[in-house]
Amino acid sequence: MSTVAPEQNDPNQLMRRTTTHKPRGTLSHWFIGRPLQTADAPHQTIGKAIGLAVFASDALSSTAYASQEILIILAAAGTAAFGYVFPISLAIVALMAVVTISYEQTIHAYPDGGGAYIVARDNLGEVPALMAAAALLTDYILTVSVSVAAGVAQIVSAYPDLFPFRVHISVVFILFVMLINLRGVKESGTAFAVPTYFFVLMMFATVGIGLGRYFFGTLGVVVNPPELEISQELAAITPFLILHAFSSGTAALTGIEAISNGITAFKEPRSKNAGITLIWMACILGSLFLGISFLAREIHAIPSESVTVISQLAETVFAGRGVLYLMVIGATTVILVMAANTAFADFPRLSALAAKDGFLPRQLTYRGSRLVFSRGIVALAIIASLLIVIFQASVTRLIPLYAIGVFLSFTLSQGGMSLRWRKIGRLKEGEQIAERGSILRFEKGWQYKMLVNGFGAVCTFIVMIVFSVTKFSDGAWVVLILTPSLMAVFWLIHSHYAKVARRLSLDHYTEPAPHVMRHRVIMPVSGVHQGTLEGLRYARMLSHDVTAVHVSIDPAETEKLQRKWNTWGDGVRLLILDSPYRLFVEPLLHYIDEILAVRQSNEVITIVVPQFVAGSPLESTLHMNTAEMLRRELLNTAGIVITDVPYQVSERKENE
Amino acid sequence: MSTVAPEQNDPNQLMRRTTTHKPRGTLSHWFIGRPLQTADAPHQTIGKAIGLAVFASDALSSTAYASQEILIILAAAGTAAFGYVFPISLAIVALMAVVTISYEQTIHAYPDGGGAYIVARDNLGEVPALMAAAALLTDYILTVSVSVAAGVAQIVSAYPDLFPFRVHISVVFILFVMLINLRGVKESGTAFAVPTYFFVLMMFATVGIGLGRYFFGTLGVVVNPPELEISQELAAITPFLILHAFSSGTAALTGIEAISNGITAFKEPRSKNAGITLIWMACILGSLFLGISFLAREIHAIPSESVTVISQLAETVFAGRGVLYLMVIGATTVILVMAANTAFADFPRLSALAAKDGFLPRQLTYRGSRLVFSRGIVALAIIASLLIVIFQASVTRLIPLYAIGVFLSFTLSQGGMSLRWRKIGRLKEGEQIAERGSILRFEKGWQYKMLVNGFGAVCTFIVMIVFSVTKFSDGAWVVLILTPSLMAVFWLIHSHYAKVARRLSLDHYTEPAPHVMRHRVIMPVSGVHQGTLEGLRYARMLSHDVTAVHVSIDPAETEKLQRKWNTWGDGVRLLILDSPYRLFVEPLLHYIDEILAVRQSNEVITIVVPQFVAGSPLESTLHMNTAEMLRRELLNTAGIVITDVPYQVSERKENE
Repeated sequence: MSTVAPEQNDPNQLMRRTTTHKPRGTLSHWFIGRPLQTADAPHQTIGKAIGLAVFASDALSSTAYASQEILIILAAAGTAAFGYVFPISLAIVALMAVVTISYEQTIHAYPDGGGAYIVARDNLGEVPALMAAAALLTDYILTVSVSVAAGVAQIVSAYPDLFPFRVHISVVFILFVMLINLRGVKESGTAFAVPTYFFVLMMFATVGIGLGRYFFGTLGVVVNPPELEISQELAAITPFLILHAFSSGTAALTGIEAISNGITAFKEPRSKNAGITLIWMACILGSLFLGISFLAREIHAIPSESVTVISQLAETVFAGRGVLYLMVIGATTVILVMAANTAFADFPRLSALAAKDGFLPRQLTYRGSRLVFSRGIVALAIIASLLIVIFQASVTRLIPLYAIGVFLSFTLSQGGMSLRWRKIGRLKEGEQIAERGSILRFEKGWQYKMLVNGFGAVCTFIVMIVFSVTKFSDGAWVVLILTPSLMAVFWLIHSHYAKVARRLSLDHYTEPAPHVMRHRVIMPVSGVHQGTLEGLRYARMLSHDVTAVHVSIDPAETEKLQRKWNTWGDGVRLLILDSPYRLFVEPLLHYIDEILAVRQSNEVITIVVPQFVAGSPLESTLHMNTAEMLRRELLNTAGIVITDVPYQVSERKENE
Repeated sequence: MSTVAPEQNDPNQLMRRTTTHKPRGTLSHWFIGRPLQTADAPHQTIGKAIGLAVFASDALSSTAYASQEILIILAAAGTAAFGYVFPISLAIVALMAVVTISYEQTIHAYPDGGGAYIVARDNLGEVPALMAAAALLTDYILTVSVSVAAGVAQIVSAYPDLFPFRVHISVVFILFVMLINLRGVKESGTAFAVPTYFFVLMMFATVGIGLGRYFFGTLGVVVNPPELEISQELAAITPFLILHAFSSGTAALTGIEAISNGITAFKEPRSKNAGITLIWMACILGSLFLGISFLAREIHAIPSESVTVISQLAETVFAGRGVLYLMVIGATTVILVMAANTAFADFPRLSALAAKDGFLPRQLTYRGSRLVFSRGIVALAIIASLLIVIFQASVTRLIPLYAIGVFLSFTLSQGGMSLRWRKIGRLKEGEQIAERGSILRFEKGWQYKMLVNGFGAVCTFIVMIVFSVTKFSDGAWVVLILTPSLMAVFWLIHSHYAKVARRLSLDHYTEPAPHVMRHRVIMPVSGVHQGTLEGLRYARMLSHDVTAVHVSIDPAETEKLQRKWNTWGDGVRLLILDSPYRLFVEPLLHYIDEILAVRQSNEVITIVVPQFVAGSPLESTLHMNTAEMLRRELLNTAGIVITDVPYQVSERKENE
């Protein structure tokens, strides 16, 4: 370690030192791993295979419930309506294709992260950007709650005895995923790659064997299907019902946008790696979802809260609850819990972006010891756990809140992209301009790209409207209130930061002319002892105008203090403030206010507070700690400086 | 209000001002009344009638359960043993007479408050004094818990539906008594005088009419007595059983000592007023207790947790549950709750005394806005409520913990007094000497007084031993562990204060020779803005040796800061500490440690911290508050001074 000597007496020199000062070894290292240097950041990026595990788990996990959600809505019209599940799924997969292609374009246009927030900010303006941020942040929170609740529902299907503990289990899972994420994105990716690929394998096996048996006519139907829960008489099969079922099924699309928010987590060439991962993900997702919907209809699966459609499918395909069945259920449970992981990867990134722009508390931009935005991770875990507790871990009660936000962000992102292509179309070939921080470069085929993004925007906008209308009374209204409220909070935070920046700005600042200053020092004393004298020596070093002030509560004590002051006070004047109501801080503050009222403009006022420092928090409970009380009050009084002269009672750390 | 002018530029003058600064009007005034000046204290004393209400409620209330507690023990030997209740009660009343005469002497010897703690401290030494304090403080806490639990048991006898809420009701009662006591001793006395005298009247009526009906042979026995709960086969009537019953019945003596602790609360002539009040109290207590024990046997009362003996007695005497029955039950309930009031009057006084001697936290000596020791009152309420919760408001489970402490303090107090008489006996007639703060004056008849106190000490010591042995397994062992533990805590607190006093003492202190001091100033900067420049101006006023230190976490930010520093830094050197692990406080502390290591003896080091002050706590959550973190760490580093230059962002309170 370098010594102090070099910077002595060498004014105006700029010095720089790198401390090898590492965070102290604590319990947290054991949990989240040794600290990483900022310079390690590039080594913390991930490749395509791990990227798929981190960012696709959310999207892939929706295959575990999307078909079931369609069936639940159709059930209102009885089993006859179940035939619509496959056509509806086909429509959803078509929409998925449009959105995927659209996002693939976005990824290449925004290699530094092209989430809906950034795209909307750069192309549509502040309000749409805040709307996108509010929608996405809400959605990530819901992703965690919904996917963990769904994972636990899967466990409860297998072990109904655990039903009363579903909330506890869910919260423990959330905390576990939080801990893994605090270790860093690379480690969480590695940890989660195995189960993700295991799930993909098991699902392809189930769907593949299922389709095989279907073609050979040996598939059969569900044995002992759960009872269909229909509250009243059968509804008719109306267009509204079909649209309602369709919007429920679009839950399958959630998570598609995850990669676009997390491009920076990929190894170089980032855009290419991220784009390819997105295509892979969409293909796996689409084929599994279609297969499951198709087979669900063929085996006459019945939607139920207690036995999931996946459970019925696996039981039918594998002819009973054998090892393969358990492997499918296990893999599904794990992927559902891991879907939360995607939100844990994206939520902190997005909130750090918004915080950097001043829309969320700045603390969220701080990277923890493992280079992840730890505060965002912890915040997400807390809010999601609260939702789990409030909604008692019920997937059906949570899911209506979900997906509106995703589609709002889809619409804003793609709308913004198509506007961007239009601007690029106005450029000459080879020309490039900088606009709002991003660079627009002429590209061939912009017309085609604009059309793709525009079509995607229109489709997702329609779905969002359908969703809002059909799910309004189920709970979607909560989101329609929450999103503007969140936007208002963002705006309030932003205006606070703007106010602070204005107040502190040096732009139109002229430094006051230096002139001889009068320095007035006030020192509260409660007793005369070594600590007081240390404070007094310091006060006298600062100025010749020192006033010691004693608030008198007990006349006998005051008299003793006066006598001691005559001996030790070194001629400094002592003012005694009698306090008939035994208040300590208030008379002192009142006196300081009086001083401030008559102060001249070139006068500086310093309050020197001899501060007693007890050795431990336990010891400090034995003292009045009035210095601390006084300081807290004084901080809010403008125009004074507060100086603590601490005197430690425990073993001194001094080097003499 | 006086102006500031007089004390300007007039060094070495002693000034004194009385602020008419009253505590601000707050919600608490509505609850506990307007603040009182310290000078009002003499007007807050009470006469004999109110004194009886304040200090006797504890002792008198024990008539509500003492007879029952004797019967509960005798029940082990079956109803045949109940005949012993009257002889045992007679023995207890005899003991009561001895203790009363003994305390009456103490009150005259110690007109400034002659509780066991003071008497033991002045005559026996520190260890017995701490023992008395520990015993009494424990006992006051138990008095609150036991009496409130007993009062609530009375209510639950009348309304069994309330049984599940007994803990809640008890805690509410404790908080209510706390609130009344925070209003001041005079007001609590007035509030409690009516129900105390009402209780005395109702009890004399019950006992009187009961005895009358007994003599005319119309008393009869309890109708529908509760079932006698005996767990196993009948025990024999052994001396141990009788002693056990006797020691349970001595609960009637608790509260006798209350007046001796609270002499200062009485109007002048204090000793006389307090002494007369004590005699009154003992007469009322003794006659009621004897009467109830006698009648309980005659009516064949059965001890029970669900229907109290008082309830059975009133029902039998007044022939049914009419208005008079309800008045007796009501009065008993109120007196039981009010017994807690006596503890609330004495506990804070005793803890303030112990705190003044340095055995408890000093804060307990502070008188609140109503001139009572508010912190002691609140502490008592909290601990007693905890006990209620832990023991689920069960009188029978709480009572074994009770009474050992009282008898220990009886023994110590009377033992101390008899030693004192012996010392007085050694003086010549008319001679007086000062010893340990109290004055010993020759008195005639010291031999008789010594004998009375000595006999009292021996009797109460025997009872204490009997109590410890017979009640050991019921829970008295808790007290035998608790008392020494509390003494150890007192001793630890005392040694902490002694250490602090030694460390700060000026007795062998020689002030360091004044010589030219070097003043070195270090100022951490996180950004360059108006707040930083304000801090910098102040730092430069302090010294020419100023070093600005920036901990670099984000290289881009650091570069921006360097550029701004070149413009605004006024030539002050800037040291940049690179922090690869993104720590902020630690590199700075490390740097300061290095500086301290090479510091010269005449060098003063000041850390100037420009401190951002947000307008509200909500706003301050939007900022990192690193200045606060830094300050907390620095306070524990000896040899440096910390100066806050606050910059407020909200509306400035300045007078310019």
